[in-house]
Amino acid sequence: MGKTFKLLAIGVVAVTLSLEGISWLLRCLRDGRGRPVKEVLFFPTTVTCINHLFLPGPCSCSLPHGDSTPFTRLLRHLLSARSSLDLCIFAFSSQELCRVVLELHRQHGVSVRVVTDKDYMMISGSQIGALRKAGISVRHELGGFHMHHKFAVVDKKLLITGSLNWTHQAVQGNKENVLVTEDSGFVRPFLQEFEKLWDANDPARSPTLSDFIML
Amino acid sequence: MGKTFKLLAIGVVAVTLSLEGISWLLRCLRDGRGRPVKEVLFFPTTVTCINHLFLPGPCSCSLPHGDSTPFTRLLRHLLSARSSLDLCIFAFSSQELCRVVLELHRQHGVSVRVVTDKDYMMISGSQIGALRKAGISVRHELGGFHMHHKFAVVDKKLLITGSLNWTHQAVQGNKENVLVTEDSGFVRPFLQEFEKLWDANDPARSPTLSDFIML
Repeated sequence: MGKTFKLLAIGVVAVTLSLEGISWLLRCLRDGRGRPVKEVLFFPTTVTCINHLFLPGPCSCSLPHGDSTPFTRLLRHLLSARSSLDLCIFAFSSQELCRVVLELHRQHGVSVRVVTDKDYMMISGSQIGALRKAGISVRHELGGFHMHHKFAVVDKKLLITGSLNWTHQAVQGNKENVLVTEDSGFVRPFLQEFEKLWDANDPARSPTLSDFIML
Repeated sequence: MGKTFKLLAIGVVAVTLSLEGISWLLRCLRDGRGRPVKEVLFFPTTVTCINHLFLPGPCSCSLPHGDSTPFTRLLRHLLSARSSLDLCIFAFSSQELCRVVLELHRQHGVSVRVVTDKDYMMISGSQIGALRKAGISVRHELGGFHMHHKFAVVDKKLLITGSLNWTHQAVQGNKENVLVTEDSGFVRPFLQEFEKLWDANDPARSPTLSDFIML
């Protein structure tokens, strides 16, 4: 009886300590390199060279180099995409952000989908044409109001959202915020919203196109 | 030796199980009523009566009653304020949202501060005048670009942020998002941003006012 109890006690201690150990290890991994991204970026930001994000080696342009700014951090988050980038952007005229999206599409084989606003896709300097020209799938709001979101989901797991339109003025002039998170409680609903808007703005469902086909 | 080992084993098991129990209890409390708020609201929303949020009892208006919509959930989060409400709102013309802010200021003694945009505070139907008339402290962007944020911090601990301007069109027409969180990793930077903008837009620092005084 005494021996059985002793063995049982050792067993319980061993199992409990093992579970604690595994739990501790998982926490360590999570808090270390695997810590979920959680960041807030505020704008406006100073203008710095971003060439180093695309090409290794020195750059001779006149802009400041090597500084980490909210904008370079935003670009780095986007450039971390390996499989997909889903964008819902009201206004998109930033050449730097367009360069990032084109780089992901052309150089990294990332599947990029963009939903934008039908009126604001025609603003001065809009990059929507350049995206479409490069073969990126872009859909625009077919409803009567604005598609006013400004969010991106990287690889279905990193959400980038806030007040910041992807324009030069937003980045370098306005007071703006961008929230970056891997919290699935936030990422999941935004992914669902993207899919909903992607389907709802399928040109095949456009009454204008249907009318055209009927004619 | 055997007895000592047995007692030691029982002690270890007891302590470990107690710690596990406490940890479980804390998790239960956290996941129950004490769970931190984490919510995403999408717009547009249907129009429903919001009178029940202010006055108990039946309402005879023609709008649908009793439904929980993203808008009523947004209003409820704002109405949960007990001590302070710090707002950074680009465009503010929603009468319902103004009603909430006035209710907090007048009926609940909540300290309300508002930072808004100097151009957009003059849009058609702007409620900024009504807020100022009620004695609420409102400051507007004194810089050359837009104060484009759309966030609120309730009682210094609940952040409400997203793409949604506080306008009728944003709530009932546009595709918009609002993220609600008590995560201090998000709330703290937004509080700091609010204080920064509040100080930067102090009218006493306005060059226009200084010029006026010098004259």
